[in-house]
Amino acid sequence: MELSDIGVVGLGVMGANLARNIESRGFRVSVYNRSGGRHSNVLQSFDGGGKFFPTDNLKSFVESISLPRKIIIMVKAGSAVDDVVSELKPLLSKGDIIIDGGNSDFRDTRRRLAEAESSGLLYVGAGISGGEEGALKGASIMPSGSPEAWPKIKRIFTSIAAKAPDGSPCCRWIGPDGSGHFVKTVHNAIEYADMQIIAETYSLLKCSNKLSNSEMAAVFSDWNCGELQSYLVGITADILEVKDSDGSDLVDKILDSASQKGTGKWAVMSALNEAVPFGLISQAVFARFVSAQKDGRVKASGVFSDRCGISSSGSVSVRDAADAMYASKIMAYAQGFSLMRAASETYGWNLDFAGIAKIWRNGCIIRSVFLDKIAAAFESNPKLENMLFDTYFSNAISEKALPWRKIVSEAVLAGIPAPCMCAALSGFDSLRTARSSANILQALRDYFGSHTYERIDRPRGEFFHTDWAAARVAGPLAKITKKI
Amino acid sequence: MELSDIGVVGLGVMGANLARNIESRGFRVSVYNRSGGRHSNVLQSFDGGGKFFPTDNLKSFVESISLPRKIIIMVKAGSAVDDVVSELKPLLSKGDIIIDGGNSDFRDTRRRLAEAESSGLLYVGAGISGGEEGALKGASIMPSGSPEAWPKIKRIFTSIAAKAPDGSPCCRWIGPDGSGHFVKTVHNAIEYADMQIIAETYSLLKCSNKLSNSEMAAVFSDWNCGELQSYLVGITADILEVKDSDGSDLVDKILDSASQKGTGKWAVMSALNEAVPFGLISQAVFARFVSAQKDGRVKASGVFSDRCGISSSGSVSVRDAADAMYASKIMAYAQGFSLMRAASETYGWNLDFAGIAKIWRNGCIIRSVFLDKIAAAFESNPKLENMLFDTYFSNAISEKALPWRKIVSEAVLAGIPAPCMCAALSGFDSLRTARSSANILQALRDYFGSHTYERIDRPRGEFFHTDWAAARVAGPLAKITKKI
Repeated sequence: MELSDIGVVGLGVMGANLARNIESRGFRVSVYNRSGGRHSNVLQSFDGGGKFFPTDNLKSFVESISLPRKIIIMVKAGSAVDDVVSELKPLLSKGDIIIDGGNSDFRDTRRRLAEAESSGLLYVGAGISGGEEGALKGASIMPSGSPEAWPKIKRIFTSIAAKAPDGSPCCRWIGPDGSGHFVKTVHNAIEYADMQIIAETYSLLKCSNKLSNSEMAAVFSDWNCGELQSYLVGITADILEVKDSDGSDLVDKILDSASQKGTGKWAVMSALNEAVPFGLISQAVFARFVSAQKDGRVKASGVFSDRCGISSSGSVSVRDAADAMYASKIMAYAQGFSLMRAASETYGWNLDFAGIAKIWRNGCIIRSVFLDKIAAAFESNPKLENMLFDTYFSNAISEKALPWRKIVSEAVLAGIPAPCMCAALSGFDSLRTARSSANILQALRDYFGSHTYERIDRPRGEFFHTDWAAARVAGPLAKITKKI
Repeated sequence: MELSDIGVVGLGVMGANLARNIESRGFRVSVYNRSGGRHSNVLQSFDGGGKFFPTDNLKSFVESISLPRKIIIMVKAGSAVDDVVSELKPLLSKGDIIIDGGNSDFRDTRRRLAEAESSGLLYVGAGISGGEEGALKGASIMPSGSPEAWPKIKRIFTSIAAKAPDGSPCCRWIGPDGSGHFVKTVHNAIEYADMQIIAETYSLLKCSNKLSNSEMAAVFSDWNCGELQSYLVGITADILEVKDSDGSDLVDKILDSASQKGTGKWAVMSALNEAVPFGLISQAVFARFVSAQKDGRVKASGVFSDRCGISSSGSVSVRDAADAMYASKIMAYAQGFSLMRAASETYGWNLDFAGIAKIWRNGCIIRSVFLDKIAAAFESNPKLENMLFDTYFSNAISEKALPWRKIVSEAVLAGIPAPCMCAALSGFDSLRTARSSANILQALRDYFGSHTYERIDRPRGEFFHTDWAAARVAGPLAKITKKI
């Protein structure tokens, strides 16, 4: 029997498409699905030719793969991954490679990697973006884990990856540990932000400018030819043109209640742990939550109709809206890359940010011309501490700052919710404020909790406490301010 | 030997002050500090009379307390609590009560409670707010845990609690489990928001209106006589008047880099887990993070000076600023109470929201007249799903909505960071928008990931998928839209 080059466990849409993609590149692929067994439709769909080897039990699946075995797990993130791994382990040989291609929490990947290596196995956590189509035709792939695994899987992985405009594969070894799944989590969080920024702009054009869906489709199509060119802007234009069976616009029939699957939430939690300002992306996650509170929103709209202080209903400039989108997008990516930078330092991953931007240029949901700019920024300065300090981005955001402020102000006055664009601007203004109001926070904390404060006229690391209530009465403070 | 009524382990400022508070109410108090021993200054400070019993080892400490023993642990949250608990356990008898009075993560309290009860002990997690002064003179106390413990500690706890304006003690049994520490975490998160809203208003008055510190002190003093009356507004007025040793204003010398100890972060993480929109309070946490990036801010201010699109430098109405603060404050508390409501359902705590608002009316950092309004709202409707649906609050926010929008718009145009007030307004507008832009999110998710969508003209729970790219070309969709 000819042995397979690789195996895929889990034949949901993503797993099945990934298996087909691999086979289409000339590799022999064993496939196995836990539920269903021999007669399942999904297994039978692989039985019609090609270099597939469908199996109905894990033992024959494992035995059908050449050593060292390469096995991609494509099941729901969480305990299902642990289940498959523990079923596989007794069947594997030293040096075999387990690859988790799902959207796993990077902390789970860290744990599974340590456990697998202690059993003599190699383990790879591979973030795979691109949805069904990417899995089938070429995805953006972010593998990490046991370094010895990479040379053994590189040929297959780069062959199934999408190709960037310059022809390079959208797959690079991200680093050790769970770094690949972490980077995928940040990718997804940026995706939340990109989508929410599009949705807020749609709101402005619809509610402020009263544009029809087809007029908005033309606007998004036009934007998709310029600096905003991106997969998500392009498909937004498509969506706005699709008709329902009665000829009306389908988008108007879709319930405004959005789900989420956890990666956005994980990214915000990581930002909290890494102390990275993450207001914009957090607002994109919270926007999903509030969207799901449809009944509460309907009730609130009744309570507050006509008494919510709306003081403007002027239309916005479409060009200004594009600038506000672009500036907000810069802030979203700046937050995402800052989070990756912080995690890279915390975990010692030594991430290559230019490389990450490059493999996002095709195959994945956030692909765009914008990523070329990010790649260029980190190529010219791999240690760039914040994207905003790159000349291209600092110039871009400066040029767009006035229209950005006008758009956000219009949203604020007109009562059109734009939480991400607002938070993007707050984040920008917070960062560029050398002397902030946090002196008040520290004074308050020292007043009620003796938490101490540092002074601008003394070295960092010297802490002072004041008995504020006494000092207010006693006057100048020489004797009351003390160094801790 | 006369046995003590209660013991306190951990004689940092909070523990020492709490012990003094208990003794001052006529109880006999054993005290013990892990570091230091017999000759430590802190232990000696309890040796000069009163009904204190200072001990230099845990065994004599435990033996000095009457059965069932009541022992309050006042050490740093985290592993130190576990250490003290495991040292105590072998010395205790069945039915003894361990009380953790620190700022513990409620998940730790849940675990410790289960462990203690399995050893035949009772366990109480008690959130204690009020800082040093509250601990000494009367705090706001939020105890929860083993229900049998409450009747045994109630007299001591209510006697050391602050008294609300109506004379009732600011201490109530919160519920089972870790609910007390959870409620304290939310209290602290609201405190973050209250402080950040004050800091943002200070920025506006300082940067937009060019008010001096003493002029601002007068403004805050004035506000402290009206609906904004609160401990934090009052001490802000104090702080703005305090002079440094050279006669200049001390507040101007304080470094604008604020620390945080974790409770704000925990609250945001809980909101993410409970799917509660929490943008405003999250922004207060992120504002601390960005404040700590002082060097980055100084650098960014150089890069973006004079090119950040500032289009307005008009002054704001002080009265409008007060209205914006009040409206933002309503949103902060609405988010905090929504989080408690969600957690109460998740964990089956059956929280009494009116009771919680009442015990925050004195002793704690967020004490204010505002809390009377919240207590009234939940008393008139204990099942109130959102504070904003209470008549008082819906009227208040409606009346203040126009000035609120003007203030936020001014901050946006003038480049003054006001992330919390912006997020407060975004949160309000998101909630009162019956038909949001989340239809776009769902269409996008269905386009690239076949995540399906619901329709406004079909019952909830029916999911549809469209092949959008095909549908755009093929025209009306009857055959392409399918029900999953």
